[in-house]
Amino acid sequence: MLPDHQFLRIPGPSPIPPSVQRAMNQPMIGHRDQETKHLLHSIQPALKPIFGTKQNVLIMSGSGTASLESAVVNAVHPGDKVLVIVTGAFGDRFVQICAEYQIAINRHDVEWGEAVEPGAIKDYLKNHPGIKAVFATFCETSTGVLNPIQELGQIIRQHSDALFIVDGVSCVGGVEVKMDAWAIDILISGSQKALMLPPGLTFAAVSERAWKVIEKNDRPSFYLDLTKYRDQLENDTTPFTPAVSLLFGLKQMLELIEQEGLEEAFARHRQMMNMTRSAFRSLGIPLLTSDKAASPTTTAIRPDDFDPDILRNVLKKEFNLTVAGGQKHLKSKIFRIGHMGYCSPADILQTISIIEVALRKIGKQVELGSGTRAAQEILLSGGS
Amino acid sequence: MLPDHQFLRIPGPSPIPPSVQRAMNQPMIGHRDQETKHLLHSIQPALKPIFGTKQNVLIMSGSGTASLESAVVNAVHPGDKVLVIVTGAFGDRFVQICAEYQIAINRHDVEWGEAVEPGAIKDYLKNHPGIKAVFATFCETSTGVLNPIQELGQIIRQHSDALFIVDGVSCVGGVEVKMDAWAIDILISGSQKALMLPPGLTFAAVSERAWKVIEKNDRPSFYLDLTKYRDQLENDTTPFTPAVSLLFGLKQMLELIEQEGLEEAFARHRQMMNMTRSAFRSLGIPLLTSDKAASPTTTAIRPDDFDPDILRNVLKKEFNLTVAGGQKHLKSKIFRIGHMGYCSPADILQTISIIEVALRKIGKQVELGSGTRAAQEILLSGGS
Repeated sequence: MLPDHQFLRIPGPSPIPPSVQRAMNQPMIGHRDQETKHLLHSIQPALKPIFGTKQNVLIMSGSGTASLESAVVNAVHPGDKVLVIVTGAFGDRFVQICAEYQIAINRHDVEWGEAVEPGAIKDYLKNHPGIKAVFATFCETSTGVLNPIQELGQIIRQHSDALFIVDGVSCVGGVEVKMDAWAIDILISGSQKALMLPPGLTFAAVSERAWKVIEKNDRPSFYLDLTKYRDQLENDTTPFTPAVSLLFGLKQMLELIEQEGLEEAFARHRQMMNMTRSAFRSLGIPLLTSDKAASPTTTAIRPDDFDPDILRNVLKKEFNLTVAGGQKHLKSKIFRIGHMGYCSPADILQTISIIEVALRKIGKQVELGSGTRAAQEILLSGGS
Repeated sequence: MLPDHQFLRIPGPSPIPPSVQRAMNQPMIGHRDQETKHLLHSIQPALKPIFGTKQNVLIMSGSGTASLESAVVNAVHPGDKVLVIVTGAFGDRFVQICAEYQIAINRHDVEWGEAVEPGAIKDYLKNHPGIKAVFATFCETSTGVLNPIQELGQIIRQHSDALFIVDGVSCVGGVEVKMDAWAIDILISGSQKALMLPPGLTFAAVSERAWKVIEKNDRPSFYLDLTKYRDQLENDTTPFTPAVSLLFGLKQMLELIEQEGLEEAFARHRQMMNMTRSAFRSLGIPLLTSDKAASPTTTAIRPDDFDPDILRNVLKKEFNLTVAGGQKHLKSKIFRIGHMGYCSPADILQTISIIEVALRKIGKQVELGSGTRAAQEILLSGGS
C-alpha cells in the first residue's frame, strides 16, 4: 500500500485543505497584539453569513461540547423546564449536560435514523406551557439525520416563549442555516466538520432575546461565560488566550468559502449526499434514513447481510480509508460516511469505487462499478 | 525591514519549533481511531516527568483558564474555605474563579514583583484551621516572579489538610517541578509557554488525595469534569474531540525535550534568565524582582527614566520584536521579556543587542554592547 496516503471519510474531524494547513504554519503571534486584533476583526464579516446572522459569532477554544454546555449554563436558569429533542447520541448529550445542572428535562425521543416531526413539537408546546428552552440537533452525527430546524424555529416561536438552542456542530458551513430568519436563539458549531479546520475551536452565535435571558442568569461560570466572549469580541479580542494557529486557519478557510460561494458549497454537499445515497441504493444496500431526513454532510448505511465493522476493517487495512461505525445501539449495525468540508464529488466517486472493491473482498456479491455509475449519473445531471 | 522576520519575546504564546510545525501538518485523523489512541498512549510516559508525577497528565482542549476553573469546580465544594495566594494578575484570576462559585475566599496578597514568604503561609494556616485548598501561582506571568512552590508544598502538608493547587501555566517545562515529591495536589499547565506549542491545549495532573475529594464533589460540571478525562485516558482516549493537530505537535515537542534532556532545558532557562538580568543590570536599568524571586521564564524590567511602552513601540516598529507591557497597576511601568520554550541563549544575545539599539533611539544613553557583553559573560561562564 502506498505509504502516507489516506482517506478520512468520517463525520468529522474532516480533512484539512492545503492552504489552511499552510496558513496554520505562520509564526506564532501575541494574543494581545494588533495582529490578533486584526485577525479577529477580519473574521467576523465572513463568519456571520455562514451562521445566517447579524450577530457576532463568538469563538471559544475547546471541543464542540464546551459550546453546548455554555448554552446550557448561560441561557437556562436552575429549575427551568426545557424540552430536549433527542434524535441520536448528540441530542442525548444535551440531556446529559442539562441533567448536571438541576434542569427540569422533558425529552422528546425520536427513533434513531428518523427526523423529528415538527407537528409533535407543536402539540407538545401547546400542552406544556412554561418551557423555557428547546434544544435540538441540526445534523445528528450519529445517524446522518438533518432535523427540520427552520420549521421547528417557526413553531417554537409561535407556540411558546422558549429559547431555541441548536447544535449545528456537524453541518454549519455545509447546509443553509438562517439563524435570524429561522428564529434560532443560540446556534453552536465546531471547527472540525464542514468548516474544514482541525478540532479545537467552537462557535456560538446568540440572539438578542437570548442575551436578555443570559444577562439575568447568575449561574456560576467563568471559562464558558458567553458575556465575557461577547464583551471582549467588541474590542476584537478574547477573554482567554485563543488557539491562535487555528484562528490563522479559520481566516483562510473563510477565504476558501468565499472563493467557492456559500450557495455553491451547500449545493456541493447536497450533491455528495445524493451521489452517496444513489450509489448504495444501486448496490442494493439499505440506507438508514429516508431521503427527507437525510443530511448533506453524513450518510448512514445499514446493511442487512454483512457486518459493517468487517467492511470498515478491510477499508482501513487495505486502502487506508476510514469510515465511521455506529454508536450506542447502532454499534455494528451501521457504518457512516462523512462527506463534509474539504471533500468533493470526485472524492465521493473514489470512496464508492473503493467500497465496491472492499465489498467483494468481504464476499458481498455486488456488481463492480454499479454504485460508482449511479453516483456518476447524479454528478452528470448536476443533481443537487 | 526584512519582511516575514519577527521575534516573539513575550511570556507566551512562545515561538513554535519548525519540527513541531511540521508535525502539526500531518493529515487529520479520526479522534476515535487507533492512530489517536497510539498517540495519546505514547504521550503520557514523556509528559509525566515534566510534571514530576507518576499520575497521568490529563489533556483538555482550551485555554489555561479552563484548567484553572476545572481545579476549582472539581476539587472545592460549595462553601469550602480556601486560601488564595495572590502575587499578580494570575493569582487574582484564581480569586475571580472562586468568587463565581460561592467559595469562602481568604486572599493573601503579596506586593506585585515579590514572591510569597512561606513563613507567612505557615502562620496563616496555623491560625486558620479548616482551609480546604491553597491556590498558588508558580510563575506569576504578570511580574516574572517564581514562587517557592516546593517550600509551600511542605508547609501546607505539615500544617493543614488543604489540597495544594498550583497554576504552572507559564513555567512547567522550563523549571523543575516535582509534583509528587513536593506535595502538589493539582498542577495545571498550558501548551503555549515553555511547552513550545500553539495555545489550545491545557493540562492537569491530579494527586490521589485530590481524586478522593473530587469523587465526593457533586458540583455540576460537564466539559471541565476531570473524572471524565481520567476515565477516558485510561483507555487512551478523551471524553470530547481533542485538538488533534496540537496533539501531533505535543508528541514532537516531547521528542525535542527528550533530545535536549529535561535538566538541560531547565539549565537553559536559568541561563537565559541570568543573561537577561545581568544585561539590564549592566545597562543600569532596574529589574522588577529580586534574584531570589526571579523566574527562569520571564523577566520584568522597571525603568526609572523612560516610558517602557515607547521602547516597546520602537522594538515592534523597527525590528518586529515583540515584548510585553505591564498589566493592571504596572501598566506603562514595566516591560516583560519572555525567555521560554523555543528560545536559546543566542536568541537572548540578539534580543539584548536589539534593545540596546532601540534604547539609544528613544534617547536613553546606554553604552552600546555593554548589556550584550554582560550576557555573553554569563554564557561563557556557563552560569545557570
